[in-house]
Amino acid sequence: MSLENLRVMGIDPGLTRCGLSVVQAGQGRAVLPVAVGVVRTPAGAELTERLLRLSNAVNDWMDDYQPEVVAIERVFERGNVSTVMNTAHAVGVLMLAAAQRGIPVHMYTPSEVKKAVSGNGRADKRQMTIMITRILGLSEAPKPADAADALALAVCHCWRAPLLARTKAALEPNSTEGAR
Amino acid sequence: MSLENLRVMGIDPGLTRCGLSVVQAGQGRAVLPVAVGVVRTPAGAELTERLLRLSNAVNDWMDDYQPEVVAIERVFERGNVSTVMNTAHAVGVLMLAAAQRGIPVHMYTPSEVKKAVSGNGRADKRQMTIMITRILGLSEAPKPADAADALALAVCHCWRAPLLARTKAALEPNSTEGAR
Repeated sequence: MSLENLRVMGIDPGLTRCGLSVVQAGQGRAVLPVAVGVVRTPAGAELTERLLRLSNAVNDWMDDYQPEVVAIERVFERGNVSTVMNTAHAVGVLMLAAAQRGIPVHMYTPSEVKKAVSGNGRADKRQMTIMITRILGLSEAPKPADAADALALAVCHCWRAPLLARTKAALEPNSTEGAR
Repeated sequence: MSLENLRVMGIDPGLTRCGLSVVQAGQGRAVLPVAVGVVRTPAGAELTERLLRLSNAVNDWMDDYQPEVVAIERVFERGNVSTVMNTAHAVGVLMLAAAQRGIPVHMYTPSEVKKAVSGNGRADKRQMTIMITRILGLSEAPKPADAADALALAVCHCWRAPLLARTKAALEPNSTEGAR
């Protein structure tokens, strides 16, 4: 049940800044960086215009990098209400882009990502950035934070996916191996 | 500054049930019903699948009825957290459909809709249904509640739009009349 060469897109969702990354699973726990970036939409623009720009950007990324699975951060009701709502609207648009291409989407909480990547569900931003830089063999730390978070989500999925696949296979005893 | 013949789509957003309506502004305060319905997506399906189905349905409605403006209920953080989040994801997908066609979107709170339609920002569902049935000259009350709410949103916009247009014109003294 190898996930080698699996292309994963990690998304740290947001409307003001949305972190996007693409990684490729290597042998064992190796993960190779493919692309990372941040999509911004102007805070002063209409919500519809911002959602359209974000949708166009993520569709361009999907065209360019052809991810096979998307890992996205689960949004919680915390912090500023309108920010939470805007982020939730953005998640709808991002998930739709995946759905329209038949790409499966997995959601992870921030603490699941931290635990998977650093072994500590309460790791701070600095620790996470150090771990991501090391895991992906980057020459310098990814910036801004949203870009690093998007990479962490993708790495989290690469490492969790084999377990998820085994669990699914165990729950479906008649299914064949090698589900991907 | 007449809005006569303006086609308005009203949307009561949701993932389990999404109310959709189309009305057409007549002379004065007359509003004519064009279409009303509810789109349902199965609660047991994946979120991505549900968002895709909703997106396809609202795009079909927009193809069929060619609305010139969309009125959608503003979502608040209240009630069940996962329901609020699912509704907010749905709003993202619904607004994207409008944005992709260049259709402007207006958001109204439930109390703004109640006040516009019944004169009372705290009108109950029964009072609202009676008013909507009367205003649109329907032979029977629209069902379910989501369908009636979608009609109320569209009527609310028909009656608020002339005021919004006048306000906009007043704030932009150099703009020409007849903005629609």
